[in-house]
Amino acid sequence: MQGAVLHGPRDVRFEERAEPTIVEPTDAIIRLSATCICGSDLWPYRGANPVTEPTPMGHEYCGVVEEIGRGVTSIRKGQFVIGSFFASDNTCPHCRFGYQTSCQHRVPVVGAQAPLVRVPLADGTLVATRDMPTADYVPSLLALSDVMGTGWFAAEAANVKRGAIVAIVGDGAVGLLGVLSAKLMGAERIIVMSRHTSRQQLAREFGATDIVSERGHEGVAVIKGLTNGVGAESVLECVGTPESMAQAIGITRPGGSVGYVGVPHGVELDAADLFFRHVRLLGGPAPVRRYLPDLIDRVLNGRMNPGKVFDLSLPLREVAEGYRAMDERRAIKTLLRP
Amino acid sequence: MQGAVLHGPRDVRFEERAEPTIVEPTDAIIRLSATCICGSDLWPYRGANPVTEPTPMGHEYCGVVEEIGRGVTSIRKGQFVIGSFFASDNTCPHCRFGYQTSCQHRVPVVGAQAPLVRVPLADGTLVATRDMPTADYVPSLLALSDVMGTGWFAAEAANVKRGAIVAIVGDGAVGLLGVLSAKLMGAERIIVMSRHTSRQQLAREFGATDIVSERGHEGVAVIKGLTNGVGAESVLECVGTPESMAQAIGITRPGGSVGYVGVPHGVELDAADLFFRHVRLLGGPAPVRRYLPDLIDRVLNGRMNPGKVFDLSLPLREVAEGYRAMDERRAIKTLLRP
Repeated sequence: MQGAVLHGPRDVRFEERAEPTIVEPTDAIIRLSATCICGSDLWPYRGANPVTEPTPMGHEYCGVVEEIGRGVTSIRKGQFVIGSFFASDNTCPHCRFGYQTSCQHRVPVVGAQAPLVRVPLADGTLVATRDMPTADYVPSLLALSDVMGTGWFAAEAANVKRGAIVAIVGDGAVGLLGVLSAKLMGAERIIVMSRHTSRQQLAREFGATDIVSERGHEGVAVIKGLTNGVGAESVLECVGTPESMAQAIGITRPGGSVGYVGVPHGVELDAADLFFRHVRLLGGPAPVRRYLPDLIDRVLNGRMNPGKVFDLSLPLREVAEGYRAMDERRAIKTLLRP
Repeated sequence: MQGAVLHGPRDVRFEERAEPTIVEPTDAIIRLSATCICGSDLWPYRGANPVTEPTPMGHEYCGVVEEIGRGVTSIRKGQFVIGSFFASDNTCPHCRFGYQTSCQHRVPVVGAQAPLVRVPLADGTLVATRDMPTADYVPSLLALSDVMGTGWFAAEAANVKRGAIVAIVGDGAVGLLGVLSAKLMGAERIIVMSRHTSRQQLAREFGATDIVSERGHEGVAVIKGLTNGVGAESVLECVGTPESMAQAIGITRPGGSVGYVGVPHGVELDAADLFFRHVRLLGGPAPVRRYLPDLIDRVLNGRMNPGKVFDLSLPLREVAEGYRAMDERRAIKTLLRP
């Protein structure tokens, strides 16, 4: 088969790779209905994370079970399934506490920008739909594998409550789905920091009430102004840079919370500063598995359509163009059709 | 009058100071029934915070209202009152959100190691008891002014729930009252890191179930061992050094919370580390004012006796010995009788 392999900064190739096979008895092989490119794929693509060897890319997936190992008991061949970007057993103490991305046996799912992917710990990781969904639902179901669950976790970690004032730093796909999550959780006011017309439009569609195009100190001042000098009670940090984290902390009211899901790159926090600001922090790789049953239900019942973040859809063989479009911010998020 | 003044590292003097007077119409003057020395007073005493000029010390107080400004409406002369170490108006948005120590008009209360103290924003800051308490209650009521409220906030910030496994870093008065708070909040297991027999004893009396004398990596390993490798869901950090914070984070389970109330000194946090650990953080100067009505009630109803942390009681004129005893860890906390 052919799939996406990163060879170095801005060098993604669509090339021959070995087909995945069952390695552990708990594995499953999935034939992908769709896959996509994650904002976090741009870190190594841009050289922010070193690429020491050719690396099969992709960790977002949904599709049909092609094969299962002999230890798999709850997932069957032919089912349509969605899973998290981290495989988890869903039985260890961390999984039972709702933090499946800290599973004691967690394994990353890799190489999903391909026609087939191997998913370890299939029983714990995968959630099957009752019926085979129609093609219309596939983008939104695919989004649940990472980006939608990550926006949802950001909102939950930021302690979004009904009636709350919420602010979102980052207008990428995660930030936009953070808007959708905050809206679904009942936020009354949703302020998004964004400078891109198309993203602002989608943010509004998902429920944003205010758009702030200023950044840095100026952006903080504008949001303080919008909130009578108080700040937001829940802030979603969806970028991962020192600047974005400083903005998020700067616009949080005392006693408010920052949920941060942008993988932090070079972000140091001064505990004394956080202390005197009374800012609560929680972040991490989103425990998508915890949310899957509920979010699948919301998608299939038409209560949300997170697939709207895919504003570019390409055949898998054009994966390199998909990366370029996201890198240059021509696309919010690229869906790939194997 | 005579009160405590810090002139430099380990140089506390009991010397003549001007009696406080009403400066703002919202002030009150309190004649102290008792005052005490705070663990945080040891930072400047030990030279960790610079002392640039002779500094009147003390911020914990309870006593009888001696005089009020003409703008004070709810507090009356002759009432027994307790207040927080930060004066607050109790009406601004931050106060109404429960974070009175971030009050938009907050003012520190200073110079309380004296017979009289001026409390700004008296209506917002002070809580009066219904009757004049007997002397027996004074130590416990005094503790509510800071140390007990701080232990309580640590437990609340650490999200202590009924049935939880809680760990406490720091066996000072705040840590010990964190034990008491966790116990009153229904924690099932309370693990305290301590190497001091007298403190271990009081910790047990307050509800500690396990004492760990190891520190650093070893201490983390022991607590992991006590919790089946999982860690504690709620951790109270009551010291404020890089080492104590690292221990607190190290023993928190993924999805668990650290409540930190030791004023951070030189504590830098790596956001990527916190991210992959899934550790929630909240700290700050405890919003003691929020808790006062409830905690006063608990003391006067005999449901708790936080005054037990005062294991040394001295006449105010011996304040210098009080500092020495705490600095040398001969005393947990010194009560001073004006």
